[in-house]
Amino acid sequence: MSQKQSSRKGNLYLIPTLLGGDDTSILPPQLLQVAQEIDVYIVENVRSARRFLVKLGIKKVGKVIDDLTFHLMDKHADPHQFGQYLQAATKGQHIGLLSEAGCPAVADPGSTVVKAAHKKGIEVIPLVGPSSLMLALMASGMNGQQFTFHGYIPIQKGDRIKYLQRIAAHASKTGETQLFIEAPYRNRHLLNDLFDHLRPENLLCIAADITLPSQYIRTYTIAEWRKKKAKMPDLHKRPVVYVVGR
Amino acid sequence: MSQKQSSRKGNLYLIPTLLGGDDTSILPPQLLQVAQEIDVYIVENVRSARRFLVKLGIKKVGKVIDDLTFHLMDKHADPHQFGQYLQAATKGQHIGLLSEAGCPAVADPGSTVVKAAHKKGIEVIPLVGPSSLMLALMASGMNGQQFTFHGYIPIQKGDRIKYLQRIAAHASKTGETQLFIEAPYRNRHLLNDLFDHLRPENLLCIAADITLPSQYIRTYTIAEWRKKKAKMPDLHKRPVVYVVGR
Repeated sequence: MSQKQSSRKGNLYLIPTLLGGDDTSILPPQLLQVAQEIDVYIVENVRSARRFLVKLGIKKVGKVIDDLTFHLMDKHADPHQFGQYLQAATKGQHIGLLSEAGCPAVADPGSTVVKAAHKKGIEVIPLVGPSSLMLALMASGMNGQQFTFHGYIPIQKGDRIKYLQRIAAHASKTGETQLFIEAPYRNRHLLNDLFDHLRPENLLCIAADITLPSQYIRTYTIAEWRKKKAKMPDLHKRPVVYVVGR
Repeated sequence: MSQKQSSRKGNLYLIPTLLGGDDTSILPPQLLQVAQEIDVYIVENVRSARRFLVKLGIKKVGKVIDDLTFHLMDKHADPHQFGQYLQAATKGQHIGLLSEAGCPAVADPGSTVVKAAHKKGIEVIPLVGPSSLMLALMASGMNGQQFTFHGYIPIQKGDRIKYLQRIAAHASKTGETQLFIEAPYRNRHLLNDLFDHLRPENLLCIAADITLPSQYIRTYTIAEWRKKKAKMPDLHKRPVVYVVGR
């Protein structure tokens, strides 16, 4: 293992996954090295976790994949079970935490597992990997010294427009960059709301399919977007991070 | 190049660097592949940029490093020059943007360069690499669905304590995680302020020397920290990301 280990306990490694596609060249060699030595995983979805580990090319794939233990942390999992999942670490085995996409314990139930690990005195080691939020923030050209991530924004149209206007006004006033996401099948609606209801001078970055060959990242003012709208690619059902700032 | 290119223009690649140390195994192979093909860099500090490229092991080091062009984007650089720096891209050359540490264009003047690139229609391509903020957030075990990064917090003691109490109260009320940093030589003072002035139930994650062999990441309530204070390592002059939540 390439990082410090607690004396006898195993560590909880937070292992980022791809944001889609098959290009494992965006994953650091350290990630593969660590995954080679882990037999117990806590994952959101067992099938896609296995698929990811195969893509990674961990050695002795047939044998290893079948020998691995996968614990599930989906919506239906009982958070009280998470403590039990961590028992392997108290017995000296390393554990890997995998998200469906990107960095674990950011936008998934993993943070509850991490919290439990800290309580049990298990060393938590986050590994470097793709974060769509951080990549979108970098590429937006907006202020990265102060920013807020809102997660999913309200669904109901009236609430949503008010929310967007409020955070755009806050960004204009304070310079604090605002990031949010939306369910991919609602992108078209959200884009119309942004184009129709933000102020012409608000800056909007649309960052779609980050790290994929189809990646599309552009920052314009709302006034400019209104002009370019007809020529922009269809973002229906594609993962997008939205960034609003000044 | 592993990602989409605009037709004739060069791209602006945002290239993360190490957070200290020499362990390049935390950097994706893609980063090295891209760096191999870049002759023009925009950097915060030429000396450390060269050192980083040598560590990366770009081929033909002697020749290449001497042939590279480095443009400076430090505090004294005129932001109007940034547009000129990008001219190489409009002529078809790729450009690399390097920060002093971690992800460029997040906590450095790079965002101004990125903004200028978008205006000129230059494709901006963020590469995966270490972000101390994201790693701290993952490892904190706190809510990653809503969070705010505050950058540096106020220096003056009275202002600082009020600021910390305000953001901790906001975290308790809304569940929105709060991240901030401090000049490393002020860590001891800041820790005392946190231990003395936050509420016993506030959760605090201290994430020091992230990705280094001396990495120290722990999350406890303020009440627990007060008990453990005597046994914690000295964080004087070490880079720390602070995370407050519930």
